[in-house]
Amino acid sequence: MEIDFTDISVVGFDADDTLWVNETYFRETEERFAELLEGYETKNKIDQELFKMEMQNLELYGYGIKGFMLSMIESALDLSNNTISQQTISSILNLGKKMINHPVELLDGVEEVLQALSGRYRLIVLTKGDLLDQERKLEKSGLSKYFHHVEVLSDKKEENYKNLLEHLEIPIGSFLMVGNSLKSDVIPILNIGGKAVHVPFHTTWAHELVSAEEERVNNHLKLNSLRDILKYLN
Amino acid sequence: MEIDFTDISVVGFDADDTLWVNETYFRETEERFAELLEGYETKNKIDQELFKMEMQNLELYGYGIKGFMLSMIESALDLSNNTISQQTISSILNLGKKMINHPVELLDGVEEVLQALSGRYRLIVLTKGDLLDQERKLEKSGLSKYFHHVEVLSDKKEENYKNLLEHLEIPIGSFLMVGNSLKSDVIPILNIGGKAVHVPFHTTWAHELVSAEEERVNNHLKLNSLRDILKYLN
Repeated sequence: MEIDFTDISVVGFDADDTLWVNETYFRETEERFAELLEGYETKNKIDQELFKMEMQNLELYGYGIKGFMLSMIESALDLSNNTISQQTISSILNLGKKMINHPVELLDGVEEVLQALSGRYRLIVLTKGDLLDQERKLEKSGLSKYFHHVEVLSDKKEENYKNLLEHLEIPIGSFLMVGNSLKSDVIPILNIGGKAVHVPFHTTWAHELVSAEEERVNNHLKLNSLRDILKYLN
Repeated sequence: MEIDFTDISVVGFDADDTLWVNETYFRETEERFAELLEGYETKNKIDQELFKMEMQNLELYGYGIKGFMLSMIESALDLSNNTISQQTISSILNLGKKMINHPVELLDGVEEVLQALSGRYRLIVLTKGDLLDQERKLEKSGLSKYFHHVEVLSDKKEENYKNLLEHLEIPIGSFLMVGNSLKSDVIPILNIGGKAVHVPFHTTWAHELVSAEEERVNNHLKLNSLRDILKYLN
């Protein structure tokens, strides 16, 4: 569809799975977790129970690796009827620490796009999750220099976006959000009257999935690669 | 000592143990943790080892309850040579969840002080720790209405303050910081040329303690109660 980009002066980027790889490491860790528990349940059941535990704890722990670690430990106790070995708990802690320490892998075209846009637009990062984790990733990524502002939000609902744009004095009409999640980066922005570009990542966390109906939102631009945004923002 | 408060237009408040009780709940949880492990070590040794573990994990986990929970679990495994029971791990998870869900207890005089100052100064909250935990506490506290801005920092070093004040366009000469920690709320502010008021809380986490030499910083105001600030800011 046709979107008028001429009024845009501020571009907001999601970070995880938009600028750099993230979900992949969660999936890899879930694989390791299922291997650790393979004596107790099927892989499918273990995946389901871990996800259920994460959802149950989401309000309490929020997004991020530490909450994920705590939910893995709690799931392991549950799935094993409290017979999981101490060594396995220890292995779960190590899986989480490895995630936190993981090097940052930029996605294809990110540096090129930021470099091209940074002279012409005010670029900001709008990410949710753990404050320290996200600051650390941004630092490791070497991308800080392109951004006027970085905001880590506890969630990405309409209200969070509204408050932030108001605080940064950004009129919604001049704002474009770019991200991999329809649920967190696209739909709430469209709902408050903004413009959005969806750049899907090959893997999406179940919690970020939207219904087929919601998926049909059609007043945004969908791109296969972040690099393609340069055709529109000029 | 005499401090000139006439140029102050923005007052920054620390949150934990300045606006509401926090350290007390960590201490209580440490007590429960030591009871859970009393078959393995003395209380003193358990306290020491847990603190060591927290310091070892601080760079990785940052401040906040989730990191504390993970460090308790790792300590319990270590202190018991991996023989701690699964039920105890489960109890540690519950101790942490109870901390997260704890009601917010405002400190004496807080509401009165904020009410008196909010018409005459721009009030902001500058706290470190877990983003979601701090947002939740502020919401539960009912104090949000007094603040123009709330910032959760991953740490409170000179650099963090400098960046934030610059971002908020607050000249350091017009800024006063109020908090219970010499290390996090007073010394870094004095070092960047700001003014600070120290309102000690009866309990201070070992990590926030400063040397006797640093304690002698004398270009700040020390108050026994937050309420006394009203004698100076008028």
